[in-house]
Amino acid sequence: MKPIDRPLTCAYSNHPRFVTELMDFVRFPSVSAQPQRASDVRRCAEWLAQHLWAIGMEQVQVIPTPRHPIVYADWRRTPQRPTVLIYGHYDVQPPDPLAEWYSPPFEPTIRSNDLYGRGASDDKGQMFTHVKALECYLQTTGELPVNVKCLLEGEEEIGSQNLPAFLERNKDMLVADVAVLSDMRILAPDQPVLTEGLRGALSVGLEIRGPKHDLHSGNFGGAVHNPLQALCEIIAKLHDTNGRVTIPGFYDHVRQWSDRERAYMARVGPSDAQILQDARVKCGWGERGYTLYERTTIRPALTVNGISGGYQGPGVKAVIPARATAKFNFRLVPDQDPGEIYGLFRQYISRITLPTVCSTIRTHLMAKPALVDRNHSAIRAAAVAYRKGFGTSPVFLRSGGTIPVVNLFQTLLGIPTVLMGFALPDDRMHAPNEKFHLPNFFNGIATSIWFLAEVAQMQEFRVAQNWRATQLAAAMM
Amino acid sequence: MKPIDRPLTCAYSNHPRFVTELMDFVRFPSVSAQPQRASDVRRCAEWLAQHLWAIGMEQVQVIPTPRHPIVYADWRRTPQRPTVLIYGHYDVQPPDPLAEWYSPPFEPTIRSNDLYGRGASDDKGQMFTHVKALECYLQTTGELPVNVKCLLEGEEEIGSQNLPAFLERNKDMLVADVAVLSDMRILAPDQPVLTEGLRGALSVGLEIRGPKHDLHSGNFGGAVHNPLQALCEIIAKLHDTNGRVTIPGFYDHVRQWSDRERAYMARVGPSDAQILQDARVKCGWGERGYTLYERTTIRPALTVNGISGGYQGPGVKAVIPARATAKFNFRLVPDQDPGEIYGLFRQYISRITLPTVCSTIRTHLMAKPALVDRNHSAIRAAAVAYRKGFGTSPVFLRSGGTIPVVNLFQTLLGIPTVLMGFALPDDRMHAPNEKFHLPNFFNGIATSIWFLAEVAQMQEFRVAQNWRATQLAAAMM
Repeated sequence: MKPIDRPLTCAYSNHPRFVTELMDFVRFPSVSAQPQRASDVRRCAEWLAQHLWAIGMEQVQVIPTPRHPIVYADWRRTPQRPTVLIYGHYDVQPPDPLAEWYSPPFEPTIRSNDLYGRGASDDKGQMFTHVKALECYLQTTGELPVNVKCLLEGEEEIGSQNLPAFLERNKDMLVADVAVLSDMRILAPDQPVLTEGLRGALSVGLEIRGPKHDLHSGNFGGAVHNPLQALCEIIAKLHDTNGRVTIPGFYDHVRQWSDRERAYMARVGPSDAQILQDARVKCGWGERGYTLYERTTIRPALTVNGISGGYQGPGVKAVIPARATAKFNFRLVPDQDPGEIYGLFRQYISRITLPTVCSTIRTHLMAKPALVDRNHSAIRAAAVAYRKGFGTSPVFLRSGGTIPVVNLFQTLLGIPTVLMGFALPDDRMHAPNEKFHLPNFFNGIATSIWFLAEVAQMQEFRVAQNWRATQLAAAMM
Repeated sequence: MKPIDRPLTCAYSNHPRFVTELMDFVRFPSVSAQPQRASDVRRCAEWLAQHLWAIGMEQVQVIPTPRHPIVYADWRRTPQRPTVLIYGHYDVQPPDPLAEWYSPPFEPTIRSNDLYGRGASDDKGQMFTHVKALECYLQTTGELPVNVKCLLEGEEEIGSQNLPAFLERNKDMLVADVAVLSDMRILAPDQPVLTEGLRGALSVGLEIRGPKHDLHSGNFGGAVHNPLQALCEIIAKLHDTNGRVTIPGFYDHVRQWSDRERAYMARVGPSDAQILQDARVKCGWGERGYTLYERTTIRPALTVNGISGGYQGPGVKAVIPARATAKFNFRLVPDQDPGEIYGLFRQYISRITLPTVCSTIRTHLMAKPALVDRNHSAIRAAAVAYRKGFGTSPVFLRSGGTIPVVNLFQTLLGIPTVLMGFALPDDRMHAPNEKFHLPNFFNGIATSIWFLAEVAQMQEFRVAQNWRATQLAAAMM
């Protein structure tokens, strides 16, 4: 019996209990965006901390921030081995629209091989694979093969606003050789993926104001520019008929990839048909000259996430509203800078806003894109772990999503992040009926167990004392 | 002392009590559009019926309809005199957005010479002028100078959907020589107006559907046509840069008015500057080649009353919503037909909806435009009454609003309607901080007292038995 067999066996024999525990975790409505859920977020953090303590982690802390707490735990009893920083988030997206859930979002329910509930996949289920892997080691061997630090935050879904300051203040506590993060999709239950690129994000709000107060659309309809109409006219001008964003300068710093890289993407990435099926739409849309996979990864995008204005209740109200608002979300790619794009957006909106109305813009969050080096030894360790956990070698894919912390770890801690996803394309993250595929949960636990064992073999890990010296050298962008 | 002096004196000496009673009336949140307010609507109807009984009206009834009741009362003791049908509505618009009210919408408050509250002007205050005029006659002389029937409905703000069937069923009960209705604006406290035209209305809802469920805008942004964006693109195509509605055929049956008529409108109607001031906007908008007054009266208009879609809560949600909806309101002029315009709108939307999304349209309400003959003797009686009540002769103006009942009275009962407004342009009907100018309330009561006396002098009134014969002949459109 090899040393790794004991934690693996422990994992296989405890699947039912692990699922029950994950359901307890999902039951917390830890919606970070909604102020009225703040106490639920805190209760969830406390539950998680208690759980980490129960499985044998040390230094367990619930650390307050100006908004939602960070849960920290570690195990550092093998100084001659590398250190892994496990990052995850226990907060979840709002569950709206509630009416579209088949089972309530915070009453986790198993149907077929899937666990349904808000956060089941993003990120509670994926994060929990690592927690259970740690448990299997500690329960069966009394130790971990590497040093581990867990950093589990409660503000990922609202832009991790308090995380940069926390990382800055706690650089020393968080020193590690590699971070691992499981908050992304793989291609299929039998095709794991190592994510090598993430888009950045920029969220902005736009308000259009017209008359000082709401007007009767009978008395004034036809003589006053309706802010809702003006907003629609502005939004309609943000894309051209080729699906390209019309903001001048928007594409100036978009990195062009080689034909070889695009050929690799075409070979290993999802086809247009696969992406359409995942999205459950009949036909695609977007920037001409690129596949749907390219449009969502190496090309930037601008989407409207919400519009609000006028009367939305039942029946009819004959009103010209005094104002209308929209929320926008940019996804940015190397080498676009969120701050620069924000400036270009402001200028363009100001230029295309007619003098009949006024516009105001505010920014909600900004995050830079991130890239991971395929040849880093920790990435190779992850590839081995996936092959053992899932029975298939992973492919390298780019993600359209944004995980601000990846760029932060790179910039502030000087370490790469292994993006080791366990979600499926149809997990409906951020949407009603989010679910987590339980076979992925089980394979994920095995993969994490293998990953920790593989990292323990890494030769070129840094000693803690050296990390500051390597920080700038390792920064990629 | 002339006979009319007694009711006039009664009115002058009871102003404070009348205001208190109007405040009691406004206090009812009789919002017809909101199902949860149905019992408030009914309580308001019962209060109004009780009030009519208390002032001496007869046959007082609260008549149920499939939704909100109709209040009826009459006084028919002078068969040799004409019969006046007083129409009004006791239901009100929803008070949203609530946060913008300086005092709560259903806690009527007097500031300066104005009574603030939802429905203070539209239509409780204006309707109440007639109720108080009846009271002044009955209290001082024990009788009315003409026969009077009061028809006060509770569904005007939601399209009077049950009124046509009620009128059809009760033609005999409602037989009259003229209807009077006070639910419109005059130019200023010292410039009364007789309304000679009303626009028709067509309210429709549009839903745009894209993906089967909400999508993550990181994973799918750039590859899927966002229903919110598609909706904006459609709305932006509904007007051209000259402010004209682009629906093919939309203007085909719009009546062209003579230069003489347009010159009269320019002379007596509000100037562009006045309309901009009333709307509290800096600059106008709309169909080129027409004044703002013309754009809101003899020209049709299309406005967006509400848009809803995606995440509208606090903070950020990175979502591509599965669907987006908009509410539209057309204002139509002679000789546009709401049914035909609805067909043209459907065709056009179907044509401009891209294959990347689906659209569904439903109609909420339809009402035809209406015109009143300036030379009818009842209109001349109203002009005299205004001169005595306000000290100034009225001008003839067109309104941009819609009162479906005017066309219904014409078509079903064969009688013209005197449109005798007491509201001011800045009364903020349908908007937050709606108010009624109390001097207009007092002058309105006097005008109604004079109007009933003037109608009593009309020579050419029809005897009740003849009304069926004249019905079709009198129909204007």
